[in-house]
Amino acid sequence: MDTLFSHVSVVTMDARMSVWVDAFVGVTDGKISYLGKKPPEEKPGKIIDGTGMVLLPGLINCHTHLPMTLLRGYADDLALQARLNDAIFPREERFDARSVKAAALLAIAECLRFGVTSVSDMFDCTGAVAEAVAESGIKANLSRGTSMYLDDDFDFETFPACRELVELHETWHNYDNGRIRVECAIQGEYTSTYQLWDALAEYAINNGLGMQLHLSETKAEHEECIEKYGLTPAQLLDCHHVFDTRTVAAHCVHLAEEDMRLLARRGVSAVHCPVSNLKLGSGCADVMGMVKAGMNVCLGTDAASCSGNLDLFRQIRACALMAKGKTGDPTAVPAAAALMMATVCGAKAQGREKECGQIAVGMDADLIVLDFNQPHLIPCHNIVSNLVYAASGHDVMLTMVRGKILYFAGNYPTIDLGAVAQQLHDYAIPTVFADDKKEPTA
Amino acid sequence: MDTLFSHVSVVTMDARMSVWVDAFVGVTDGKISYLGKKPPEEKPGKIIDGTGMVLLPGLINCHTHLPMTLLRGYADDLALQARLNDAIFPREERFDARSVKAAALLAIAECLRFGVTSVSDMFDCTGAVAEAVAESGIKANLSRGTSMYLDDDFDFETFPACRELVELHETWHNYDNGRIRVECAIQGEYTSTYQLWDALAEYAINNGLGMQLHLSETKAEHEECIEKYGLTPAQLLDCHHVFDTRTVAAHCVHLAEEDMRLLARRGVSAVHCPVSNLKLGSGCADVMGMVKAGMNVCLGTDAASCSGNLDLFRQIRACALMAKGKTGDPTAVPAAAALMMATVCGAKAQGREKECGQIAVGMDADLIVLDFNQPHLIPCHNIVSNLVYAASGHDVMLTMVRGKILYFAGNYPTIDLGAVAQQLHDYAIPTVFADDKKEPTA
Repeated sequence: MDTLFSHVSVVTMDARMSVWVDAFVGVTDGKISYLGKKPPEEKPGKIIDGTGMVLLPGLINCHTHLPMTLLRGYADDLALQARLNDAIFPREERFDARSVKAAALLAIAECLRFGVTSVSDMFDCTGAVAEAVAESGIKANLSRGTSMYLDDDFDFETFPACRELVELHETWHNYDNGRIRVECAIQGEYTSTYQLWDALAEYAINNGLGMQLHLSETKAEHEECIEKYGLTPAQLLDCHHVFDTRTVAAHCVHLAEEDMRLLARRGVSAVHCPVSNLKLGSGCADVMGMVKAGMNVCLGTDAASCSGNLDLFRQIRACALMAKGKTGDPTAVPAAAALMMATVCGAKAQGREKECGQIAVGMDADLIVLDFNQPHLIPCHNIVSNLVYAASGHDVMLTMVRGKILYFAGNYPTIDLGAVAQQLHDYAIPTVFADDKKEPTA
Repeated sequence: MDTLFSHVSVVTMDARMSVWVDAFVGVTDGKISYLGKKPPEEKPGKIIDGTGMVLLPGLINCHTHLPMTLLRGYADDLALQARLNDAIFPREERFDARSVKAAALLAIAECLRFGVTSVSDMFDCTGAVAEAVAESGIKANLSRGTSMYLDDDFDFETFPACRELVELHETWHNYDNGRIRVECAIQGEYTSTYQLWDALAEYAINNGLGMQLHLSETKAEHEECIEKYGLTPAQLLDCHHVFDTRTVAAHCVHLAEEDMRLLARRGVSAVHCPVSNLKLGSGCADVMGMVKAGMNVCLGTDAASCSGNLDLFRQIRACALMAKGKTGDPTAVPAAAALMMATVCGAKAQGREKECGQIAVGMDADLIVLDFNQPHLIPCHNIVSNLVYAASGHDVMLTMVRGKILYFAGNYPTIDLGAVAQQLHDYAIPTVFADDKKEPTA
């Protein structure tokens, strides 16, 4: 046994939502090897005292764009077109591999600091994102976000984004025994046409890859699709076999009821991104409706440039709060349900449900420890309630992936934050914000 | 000059939302004595290096019930009646001065930790709350929440809650040169009748005291009032001169448009408590409507037993997000506006606008310093955006009231947290949760 967490409260996230108080969790060779009320007989290499601490599975952020962290706070509180066309898009175009890697490392540090052990990412320069993921030790399902407007000469082999997907797939899929998985990605129904959907669906199915997409995020895109095709985006993409592989659909704010039933039947997971959806004025997804329809609902931060941060605890809380606000029912999405979305449901969405999302013997040791010895977590009548309504990502004091500590009390053993900050300051910010008059102030 | 913050970014919260980068803030005899881009000539007693830090006015929590922190997480995710009648009320009744004081000290520690320098509180055993406030150094507008059903023999002099108010007023009003102010409080229109309203309004006016009340928090209470009296709660209380003094109305979730105009005209401040209102399924106040009607809108956490915590940064963020979600307009309540509600508008609601809420020479040195040297606050294109959408109360590393440091990097110079925890464990929890089978786990 490499590491033993002693006298810790364990929120297992098993089907019965078992909470073990004053328990012991052992880690051996990157896996959880012990869970019990008594100390194990085997002598551990290292003991971490968990008195007053809460241990739970690492959180899973099922939708983000890590490098967009570089645009955090850049174009907040603006109308959609001013934000995208005048601020975001022109700067997004200036990203290159070097700035993407630096921004991705910054973003991963934030993820680890807030207890996220696995992310699903959609971006470009994906080789650079993969390098950042590989170096940092976090888990990731990586995809190349792909757009393509109707083009009779479309050729999967030569289309740049598809070439990048193939290269990403060949270079990084199943890297480090599956720590990285590559997936296909349709940026959105409204930024592409059937040729791309068909080609990506075929590539995903033939290669056993998952699929990521944005779906019905705004009312406009949802309604324009119906007007144009006579079908909702979900119905349309289903006709093109997009959901024939494990699919994760981000946002799902404006799904029709029949969409929910369709997606449930097709096993599509919805990624609820409540903070991003509120902040951009897109609305709030009907989480209770999706759950009742039988969909797997998980959580995502979206890009830090959309939601402001990559703290999944804020999504957990927002999810529980918004469901109550939307329905007027204070029993909607109770704390345990919101926490499940961030753990077991996220693992299922990522196709990782056999390796993580719970604290159970045999699972990967992807876990986090929160310090409950703080005024805002006292008293603790109910650990799960306190986790959702009182705690925050800042209370995470340790983040472990496959038995390796990737964050501990302000330290990032795998990320040289000083070097990352230097890269951002010397290269990424001057490049991406080349025509901005004002230097960002740090 | 006692203290100088050097090389710090200052968010002044003045009318132009001036932000000073790499500036200097001096504190002398509890007041801000210097603000400039160059170091002052006068030599300070102590220099605090503010490199990479952001300094802003302390936040003002305009509606809470501090001792209810003892019930944090106790009855979450329950329907209204099960929550109140079966869980909350029976335990609230068992509070006594000793448990109230311990719980209030715990709550104040949380306030200070999250950057709150002044609170408006409504509870009973208010002498014990006042003692906790006095010892801790925080500012507070304290009130005795008062309910009373129609009683022909009602006598202000002998009615227990009114006697407590008089005692509170005589003992604590203007304590420590106005650090504590006492106010009258009508618990709610639906828990009292005109005799109490008239008597409290008269007492407030005669003694120059402010007024606190809950107003139109739930749809049911708002509509039942209309049915019973033919007037909205705001209209009804206005007839009884309740608003003839400076009044702070908590929640205001279900105000009619004419209520907003009335309250604006009468100078009544609304306390928006978005997290509590969502969590209890009450709805979400129309902040944009209230602002447009000309009302002063400030922010409150409500009790930790309602919202889960006393972190006002979460209310600032929720306010900015919910306004956008509610209107579908991403420009609604921009970051600066939300931050104003938590500072200048809060100070105005408390009648403290001449003493705090801004960083300006001559104001009390009620200020907080946030550590922006963290991954989730990089880059910093816009300090105010990062404060609202990326930062959290956890980023506060220093809280100062009237020039005294009350929180610094995990330490509470005026509160013995160990002793408070002991009081809670040995006395308050066993007393208040006497019939609970399960011990709370900490």
